[in-house]
Amino acid sequence: MTYELHYWPGLQGRGEFVRLALEDAGARYRDVARGPEIEGGGERALMARMAKADPPPFAPPFLVDGDLVIGQTANILLHLGPRLHLAPADEAGRLWVNQMQLTIADLVAEAHDTHHPLDVGDYYEDQADAAKVRAKAFRDDRIPKYLGWFETILAGQGDDAWLTGAAVTYADLSLFQVAEGLTYAFPRAMARAGAKLPRVLALTERARTRPNIAAYLASPRRIAFNETGIFRHYPELDG
Amino acid sequence: MTYELHYWPGLQGRGEFVRLALEDAGARYRDVARGPEIEGGGERALMARMAKADPPPFAPPFLVDGDLVIGQTANILLHLGPRLHLAPADEAGRLWVNQMQLTIADLVAEAHDTHHPLDVGDYYEDQADAAKVRAKAFRDDRIPKYLGWFETILAGQGDDAWLTGAAVTYADLSLFQVAEGLTYAFPRAMARAGAKLPRVLALTERARTRPNIAAYLASPRRIAFNETGIFRHYPELDG
Repeated sequence: MTYELHYWPGLQGRGEFVRLALEDAGARYRDVARGPEIEGGGERALMARMAKADPPPFAPPFLVDGDLVIGQTANILLHLGPRLHLAPADEAGRLWVNQMQLTIADLVAEAHDTHHPLDVGDYYEDQADAAKVRAKAFRDDRIPKYLGWFETILAGQGDDAWLTGAAVTYADLSLFQVAEGLTYAFPRAMARAGAKLPRVLALTERARTRPNIAAYLASPRRIAFNETGIFRHYPELDG
Repeated sequence: MTYELHYWPGLQGRGEFVRLALEDAGARYRDVARGPEIEGGGERALMARMAKADPPPFAPPFLVDGDLVIGQTANILLHLGPRLHLAPADEAGRLWVNQMQLTIADLVAEAHDTHHPLDVGDYYEDQADAAKVRAKAFRDDRIPKYLGWFETILAGQGDDAWLTGAAVTYADLSLFQVAEGLTYAFPRAMARAGAKLPRVLALTERARTRPNIAAYLASPRRIAFNETGIFRHYPELDG
């Protein structure tokens, strides 16, 4: 059983939340659009697979699992969680992990809007002044509010616990990705916020050193953060 | 079994997607913050219930169902769907409905950002110029793209079908709410877009005349659209 992940090549984007779950679990998957065209890869293969789906997903990422074509990052993870042993066994636990993942999705959308506050289809450079205003509110209010919420959740667990306790879930891996991304994009703001986020930062370190995650991060499969993704480092937005 | 819905009084907001599902199903629920304080209602009761949850949800709406406290609109509906007979019986069908609901959630967030492009915590009047730019992109590009996607889905079904076929789901009720909200906020833009959305508009009419929905809309339980919610009518944003 090989999963097919379809996402734009060249950036981590929302596809990365799926990749981290697949990698941590050691699952077999093809990252279709990043493969060579001669082997049925490339962006054209992604577009063709998307068009063939009936109905097609609204946007990548989408996952092909046998006959299923699943879109929306949190929905893909809802499906994969139990299969990859990255979700609780009980329904209430799965709902809670999904709730945390949807809150991460909201944070990700707001992080994206810091560099695209006016028009998602237009260049950053054409909305850079508005971006400065939006980024300030994001740094000052939203990062502390979102990550502070996760800090509170972790404070209710023991030392060295994950968000739901002893077992890691896909929401932990996504929180790691968000903390990494925010630190890349807003190093100064995150250095200030970090003092109040010891548990979030400790979780991030623990996730980074999980064997499969460490191997993945050191591999060419991990795309570096860059200025085409969600988390972009524009120094003028870091206050 | 009475559900407790907790959401800010005075606006439809994200709570409305939950209300429509509960109302269509004829479920018993308390809309806690809208009840009188003397009967344990009011905004104070919402805040107290939120603080008592361990861990608390990130934000309202949240649903209390017995021992469960469930946050995030799409997550609440994922939980309620099968219980209210507003979701398919099979797992693949539920994933697909969740996928559509998450796409609606993205659209809702973008609709909100038309009047708050720079700072969610600041007044509209202080970001009205940026709002004009953002609203134009939303009207010209995003409304047609999002609602066009739902039109495509409906085109794959028969005449008078819902998004998944013969049976209504909570995603249909949410699409109704979004179409109503967008028509309230952007009547001119929606009049233009409507020519290419016959199936979405027909679904909206069918949803509106379902007996329980019609009774709800005519009741004082339905809050009118207003300028404190997600869908706000500022004529200068309607192009």
